[in-house]
Amino acid sequence: MIGPGDTVHFECVDASGGQVVPGMSAAEFVTIDRGRIHALTGPVAIAGAEAGDVLEVQILDISHKGWGWSSVIEGLGFLKERFSYPYLFHWTLDGAFTRSLAPAVVPLRPFCGVMGVAPADDGEFRTRAPGVFGGNLDVRELYAGSTLYLPVLNKGALFSCGDGHAAQGDGEVCINGIECPLDVTLRFHLHKARALDGPFIEVAQHAIPADQSAAWVVVESDRDALQAARRATSRMVDLLTEHWGFSDVHAYLLCSVAMNLRLSQVVNEPMITVSASLSKHILPERQLYPHAGQ
Amino acid sequence: MIGPGDTVHFECVDASGGQVVPGMSAAEFVTIDRGRIHALTGPVAIAGAEAGDVLEVQILDISHKGWGWSSVIEGLGFLKERFSYPYLFHWTLDGAFTRSLAPAVVPLRPFCGVMGVAPADDGEFRTRAPGVFGGNLDVRELYAGSTLYLPVLNKGALFSCGDGHAAQGDGEVCINGIECPLDVTLRFHLHKARALDGPFIEVAQHAIPADQSAAWVVVESDRDALQAARRATSRMVDLLTEHWGFSDVHAYLLCSVAMNLRLSQVVNEPMITVSASLSKHILPERQLYPHAGQ
Repeated sequence: MIGPGDTVHFECVDASGGQVVPGMSAAEFVTIDRGRIHALTGPVAIAGAEAGDVLEVQILDISHKGWGWSSVIEGLGFLKERFSYPYLFHWTLDGAFTRSLAPAVVPLRPFCGVMGVAPADDGEFRTRAPGVFGGNLDVRELYAGSTLYLPVLNKGALFSCGDGHAAQGDGEVCINGIECPLDVTLRFHLHKARALDGPFIEVAQHAIPADQSAAWVVVESDRDALQAARRATSRMVDLLTEHWGFSDVHAYLLCSVAMNLRLSQVVNEPMITVSASLSKHILPERQLYPHAGQ
Repeated sequence: MIGPGDTVHFECVDASGGQVVPGMSAAEFVTIDRGRIHALTGPVAIAGAEAGDVLEVQILDISHKGWGWSSVIEGLGFLKERFSYPYLFHWTLDGAFTRSLAPAVVPLRPFCGVMGVAPADDGEFRTRAPGVFGGNLDVRELYAGSTLYLPVLNKGALFSCGDGHAAQGDGEVCINGIECPLDVTLRFHLHKARALDGPFIEVAQHAIPADQSAAWVVVESDRDALQAARRATSRMVDLLTEHWGFSDVHAYLLCSVAMNLRLSQVVNEPMITVSASLSKHILPERQLYPHAGQ
């Protein structure tokens, strides 16, 4: 039990619960106990918290430990038909960037994929699906400096966090960010009897914005927003393989840790338009359509 | 007929085809001829263009004419159940910003909501739905400096543009950006026999990024991506009315011209998580959850 205003330091293992280690092979990876995925740190009870309050979670500091992993898992992921074989990639993290997937330079903005309070219902729950309580939101703006507000649904709020990501793109398309253990320092405040319908974030300015405007953008329109997003992601994978020489699966991983995915328009019925973009700052310069004489 | 490498200046009327003028009332607005919506400028034939080529459209310059409008139209828009009454708002545009919806300061990044080549099929088409040919994409990154690539689907390509927006948010949630006449200067290049599955954009760095990271973010998760986006948009409207004093409909218009809408995760089955955000640079500073003693 902590009190409002208290600062708590969380030592979070990686999403596998410490089963994945640097150098592990894909063959070993497929044998891990998936029932231990999303090993969380918590719950922490906040004194005086009651249903109907708002829990404020100030994200004071998050640091990685120099390594991380990303995988492709059969039957999971946004392009699961295209990528159906198991794959495991190891990242070396050096301060604010990783060059493990050269020539890409991926900026690191460590955050917890899962931060949440106990759900309102009684029972046991899998951690995969996020909700009003927060949980597996995978919102990459939850980095150090930002503040998360959650509705309190139970006495004590019962906050947990984990699923550390050193970086993640919008969508988390391959099912992983850069999965890693994290040291996380949070300060908790309580706002009594404030209505809040779901997670709300006050995002801090980051030194390296996720969405610098100079970018390569693939645009897809479809009656189904997710189908448009899926085709846009698949075309971005093609673009990375064709022009930057990534293998298919490395391109997919790069999208999962660095791509932006925006709903450009949602009103031009019956079509929804989705833009998948990669910042030019992540990739070496290329002239994809050179002009004559160049 | 123009040749590859030629520069063309388009004088584009606003999306209403010149029917909406500054000072028009909502009562007059509902009587306009909606069959003239999306009056486009074009088509321009490019010599030598054939199906299977790629048309490159360099957006050299776009300028507004100091005024624009946004509306709510019964039966249209992302929150059509909540906003079902007709409404018309007039904007005064002063260089790079508009303060017409004070206290918001909305950055202007003029672009054409519609840029496209003739579709592959024969026939007459409404302009509302975008597609492989481009068209009503409403992708707000198509500002001056950016380059749009489109697959050529007919002899001559037959390029048209229009639906000028001085600014627009992701989603264009109220069905309008800041609708306005635009002067548009484009240069066309042809890339023979290059495969392209749909619109592709090389986005230039903008002086005022749309998605500066310091922001207010509403997070919603749902099995249906659009339902999550709709609830997030509706909560953002509530936030603007509660904390910044906007009327409901003005908050909706502000979301339509300035909000970001991201697919934060698309893999945590069965839930999709959508983030609706407004840059802090657009709004006066507020402490939404003050701490005791402040």
